[in-house]
Amino acid sequence: MTSLFHTFVGGTAGRWQVERMRVIVGQTLPSVPRLSIFEGNQSTTLEGSIWLLSGVTSYERYVHKTERSALVAHQSELGRIEAARAALIPIKKSIAWWKLAQDERRAIFEERSHHITIGLKYVARIARRLYHGYDLGEPFDFLTWFEYAPEDAGVFEDLVGALRGTEEWTYVEREVDIRLAR
Amino acid sequence: MTSLFHTFVGGTAGRWQVERMRVIVGQTLPSVPRLSIFEGNQSTTLEGSIWLLSGVTSYERYVHKTERSALVAHQSELGRIEAARAALIPIKKSIAWWKLAQDERRAIFEERSHHITIGLKYVARIARRLYHGYDLGEPFDFLTWFEYAPEDAGVFEDLVGALRGTEEWTYVEREVDIRLAR
Repeated sequence: MTSLFHTFVGGTAGRWQVERMRVIVGQTLPSVPRLSIFEGNQSTTLEGSIWLLSGVTSYERYVHKTERSALVAHQSELGRIEAARAALIPIKKSIAWWKLAQDERRAIFEERSHHITIGLKYVARIARRLYHGYDLGEPFDFLTWFEYAPEDAGVFEDLVGALRGTEEWTYVEREVDIRLAR
Repeated sequence: MTSLFHTFVGGTAGRWQVERMRVIVGQTLPSVPRLSIFEGNQSTTLEGSIWLLSGVTSYERYVHKTERSALVAHQSELGRIEAARAALIPIKKSIAWWKLAQDERRAIFEERSHHITIGLKYVARIARRLYHGYDLGEPFDFLTWFEYAPEDAGVFEDLVGALRGTEEWTYVEREVDIRLAR
């Protein structure tokens, strides 16, 4: 249950090469050729950095016990040798979303948008970690990091496409899709 | 829906005089004679400060829509002239609490401990604001600030006493109760 504070640094250095950056909605991020990931709060200036996005792993906000059991039983791990592709997808939701009560957000998230149900179909092939930025005052409320094998690139498109078609996504006011290779 | 980042500074200065500090469970905080409250991230050293506790207001984690409507209809505001007494109660919950799924935490919080139902009985006389520290990596997960009139001091004792007797409170591993007057 240790929280991980990670900073994703877009710039000219880093293990991950940016293959594509695309704005889905809202303001863009400057294009960068490479991405690096640091643990802890980076107060020092990083050479060649163009932007920094931070987030922290945290307790779950919507997942129920039975849903978590299903996710844990099937999910793949980060850092698999075959997972030479990754995606970083920063998202900011609207004020209207955050003003909703917990039961209203849960109903949109799962009962009506099937976020967990959709995710469950992909967890065995697409490894994933969610970072929270809302309480940190970060420009994005969430940073989601995904890792997958090159042959699962099409599967990953299906996943993000399915989520972007949901009612939940009508509350997303900024989203950038960054695809990476190592 | 703007988040407020506040820092509570215990030390030798500030508008609020500390009348009593008491550890309820876990490690104490050093005793201080006064408390001040600052907006924003304090990176400068404050003269006479002995400890600093920070938190941010955030979206609600457990309150349902109907419950919020009842709270909003009855709650008193911070800053009332007659509210010359206050309390700052920093709380840290256990790893076991944070490992629970959302539905398990909600069931303990409200269905079994009646946290909202208990609170509702007091909101007209005890003004309250919750600050979150978990994602900030703060020593306390929550800082709750209460304001009340001197004649409601007994009512406030009833409120904290009722909450401390609940199943939810068995997950509290650190709690300090700081009572203030201005």
